[in-house]
Amino acid sequence: MSNAVYENYPPALNPAQREFLVRTIKDWTTQNGLMVRPAPTFVSKDVNPHGVLATNAPVTLFPSPFPRSCFEEAEALQTVYNKLLIDVDDFISNLWKVHLAVKKEGYVQTLSLGLFRSDYMPHIPSDSAVPQLHQVEFNTISSSFGGLSSLVASLHTELLNSPPGHPIAYPPHPLLESNQPPKNTAVESLSAGLAAAHTAYGLSRSTPALPRCILFIVQENERNVFDQLALSRQLAKVHKIPVFRLLSSEVLDHTTIPSSNPSRPLIYRPPHAPEGTEFEVTTVYLRCFYTPTDYKSERDWEARTQLERSAAIKCPTVLNQLSGSKIVQQVLASTTGPDHLSSFLADTDPAIIAKLRNTFAPQYDLSEGGQGRELALNPETAENHVLKPQREGGGNNIYKSAIPDFLRSIPENEWKRWILMELITPPAAAKNIALRSDGEVLSGAVIGELGIYGTILWDQAGGEILRNEQGGWLMRTKAKDVNEGGVATGFSSLDSVVLF
Amino acid sequence: MSNAVYENYPPALNPAQREFLVRTIKDWTTQNGLMVRPAPTFVSKDVNPHGVLATNAPVTLFPSPFPRSCFEEAEALQTVYNKLLIDVDDFISNLWKVHLAVKKEGYVQTLSLGLFRSDYMPHIPSDSAVPQLHQVEFNTISSSFGGLSSLVASLHTELLNSPPGHPIAYPPHPLLESNQPPKNTAVESLSAGLAAAHTAYGLSRSTPALPRCILFIVQENERNVFDQLALSRQLAKVHKIPVFRLLSSEVLDHTTIPSSNPSRPLIYRPPHAPEGTEFEVTTVYLRCFYTPTDYKSERDWEARTQLERSAAIKCPTVLNQLSGSKIVQQVLASTTGPDHLSSFLADTDPAIIAKLRNTFAPQYDLSEGGQGRELALNPETAENHVLKPQREGGGNNIYKSAIPDFLRSIPENEWKRWILMELITPPAAAKNIALRSDGEVLSGAVIGELGIYGTILWDQAGGEILRNEQGGWLMRTKAKDVNEGGVATGFSSLDSVVLF
Repeated sequence: MSNAVYENYPPALNPAQREFLVRTIKDWTTQNGLMVRPAPTFVSKDVNPHGVLATNAPVTLFPSPFPRSCFEEAEALQTVYNKLLIDVDDFISNLWKVHLAVKKEGYVQTLSLGLFRSDYMPHIPSDSAVPQLHQVEFNTISSSFGGLSSLVASLHTELLNSPPGHPIAYPPHPLLESNQPPKNTAVESLSAGLAAAHTAYGLSRSTPALPRCILFIVQENERNVFDQLALSRQLAKVHKIPVFRLLSSEVLDHTTIPSSNPSRPLIYRPPHAPEGTEFEVTTVYLRCFYTPTDYKSERDWEARTQLERSAAIKCPTVLNQLSGSKIVQQVLASTTGPDHLSSFLADTDPAIIAKLRNTFAPQYDLSEGGQGRELALNPETAENHVLKPQREGGGNNIYKSAIPDFLRSIPENEWKRWILMELITPPAAAKNIALRSDGEVLSGAVIGELGIYGTILWDQAGGEILRNEQGGWLMRTKAKDVNEGGVATGFSSLDSVVLF
Repeated sequence: MSNAVYENYPPALNPAQREFLVRTIKDWTTQNGLMVRPAPTFVSKDVNPHGVLATNAPVTLFPSPFPRSCFEEAEALQTVYNKLLIDVDDFISNLWKVHLAVKKEGYVQTLSLGLFRSDYMPHIPSDSAVPQLHQVEFNTISSSFGGLSSLVASLHTELLNSPPGHPIAYPPHPLLESNQPPKNTAVESLSAGLAAAHTAYGLSRSTPALPRCILFIVQENERNVFDQLALSRQLAKVHKIPVFRLLSSEVLDHTTIPSSNPSRPLIYRPPHAPEGTEFEVTTVYLRCFYTPTDYKSERDWEARTQLERSAAIKCPTVLNQLSGSKIVQQVLASTTGPDHLSSFLADTDPAIIAKLRNTFAPQYDLSEGGQGRELALNPETAENHVLKPQREGGGNNIYKSAIPDFLRSIPENEWKRWILMELITPPAAAKNIALRSDGEVLSGAVIGELGIYGTILWDQAGGEILRNEQGGWLMRTKAKDVNEGGVATGFSSLDSVVLF
């Protein structure tokens, strides 16, 4: 039923239609900054020694169908997720207290800013046609693509309405008739989150007072720079807040914390400004430091530490980054053991907690007589599951029909080391066409992932929430299959949605 | 005096400042569509087979100083120029009447649209410090760069105000303090001109009535496509008018004039639209067909003829294109012979005609006892002049100090074949820095040319002017010199102005 929607979508394109769409999208992306810097495998340093060339971000030609019920539920749950994740901070923070106690320095900034993105897929249960919303991942650091995602929604919306009054850019299709992607406020929402932190920081803590700014800490050779610039442009134009970009490798060169000032303000000296120009950083926005390769040397850890101990509001703090980790999410999702979810969200409506829990793919241990053992050994139900080792690095995942035989092949007393997890079954018939950044146009079966953005500003000291908002979304669509030749069709594109 | 303004401009940049400005401009241009497709000499077809790559349009790092008096005069004269050029149509049209009479078909569309650009330089007379406005060229077809020019003004304005409240992107300089480029309304103004023609066309002349559109006729492999798209985006978004782009080579494939309809509507069938979709073209906007190389075969002439004989309003008509030719401008500028200027502008204030005439570089014949002969033979005054053959192809130009000797070397009875023209002396000390499209950053002495856009819609039958507007400007800055090695420093950049 739900799958049927995807069957005849997108509409077929004849060569002239396809050429028109591809040409229009190539031009539109460039005119509107829906761009990335090209990969070195596409354009070598030889060709482009000064790094001026740019190319379209990978985008789908059509918006993808998405169940309205799932979309609306994902939006509705975002502020609950925001809150859940900050509560979990308490839990993780125990791990850090020892370290902090030893340091005996303590925090000078208790406000914390989260720009989060919760990623979902629509799940078609084997026993029902009603799509369910299942969470894939929750991002607490460098939740990216808000800037470009808004542009893809604009691109598809414009195509749907082009030319004005007599839309013919897309071939006619029932799903596209009088249907538009929902408004995408990701840029406004994420920027407003950063601006709220900037305001909450209050007056300069330096004597004499310094002008204040937001600092984006970024990676070298960032290809996704235009995504980030969409936020800084909004902050400068709408919120009138100075924003600077600083490479993570240059944090220690251009920022200091004056040792004479117990408030520990983070001082930024723009290298391009006249001698002596200083800004006080209210908010540090990390678009780096989220992956081990971002820490190339001890100096990078020093840089992160300098940011962390400063009075600037961090987006995110170290603690908050940890609370988004997969391990924490596994604990929350567990259907057995203590109900962490309810205890963290003690003051939340139980009906909402139940909805939140429903977005987790169910997990089961293989205890004797339990539901997990039953689902794992029955070949029919095993088909919808994956068997994962309880601890990271504890072995390979076992999928679907291989599960019953695998379990029978190992001693029963080892079964407790494994956990059974329901697989997400996305709509099987989903298809789309994508324009890659190298200009290749590829089509085929796809899996789409919806991300919902949320921002939260809270006081880690008292737990008070100053602001908790949902706003904006991201649709990413990936090629599902390898082609008949076994070659990956290979695309991962920015997309938008038409709800049904 | 006037030159002094240019002496210490632009402010010096240290390496960090220069790097910041160049990096910021590279990113800003891409984020905001201030882009061109790269030249094949920069990025070969091998590297970019699908034509997705784009690069910044060449731009200056700083806005250029420009005398306020000249700028304001140029703006004030634009609607007079608009009108002058359409009056000249009458003059040229005599040449065409024979042809039209033979054809005995006549016009079905008497409305005509002009999107003009008048290009000027500030001229510093040898005997005065007061800069004068001198016209370099008047463009009546494909007056380009309105789209990108607005963006350069925005770029420089943003840099002047960045970051908000504490601008430090540019080093401090008196000319930049509390000074901003004037508002540049080129996109709004040119689009409004096209929209006015679309409206004036009135109802569809087809039975049954067809939806109406504006057609941009464009060149293959247009690198300056984003300049054009700025206008079509404005037409679609603000004026809600369908706009299509059509290659000049495909005019005959996708447009027709139904022979059964004496109104001769121009019908456009978008090749990408569903079978049978037709639009009636109200306005043909030529961004091609202005240079002989645009007419590769008889078929291109047929295409131009089909557009011309249709009911669509042409921007420009063949006549109007001719009226912008250099020969016509020479006749108007002539200081001897009949006063064509006053007769064409019979109902215009003589003071305004005088101002208009002042924008022409003075021209003199070498008649005996005349001023021309005196200026040409005196080595001091010859220095400010060029000697040009009266007819095109009549010989090479003779410059400055070479003039007296040259004249003495030829028989006096041949002097009448030459005309003496005052050279424009632009501010000698003008300098700027440019980021080229290939990423090279070059600096040096420059010559700047100011263009003022104007639009006019009139009825060629009765001479009635329906609309005559000035709006928007273009500053283009070219490297003046070759360097010590004799190699051209080579840049021609889009720029903006700060008035003084």
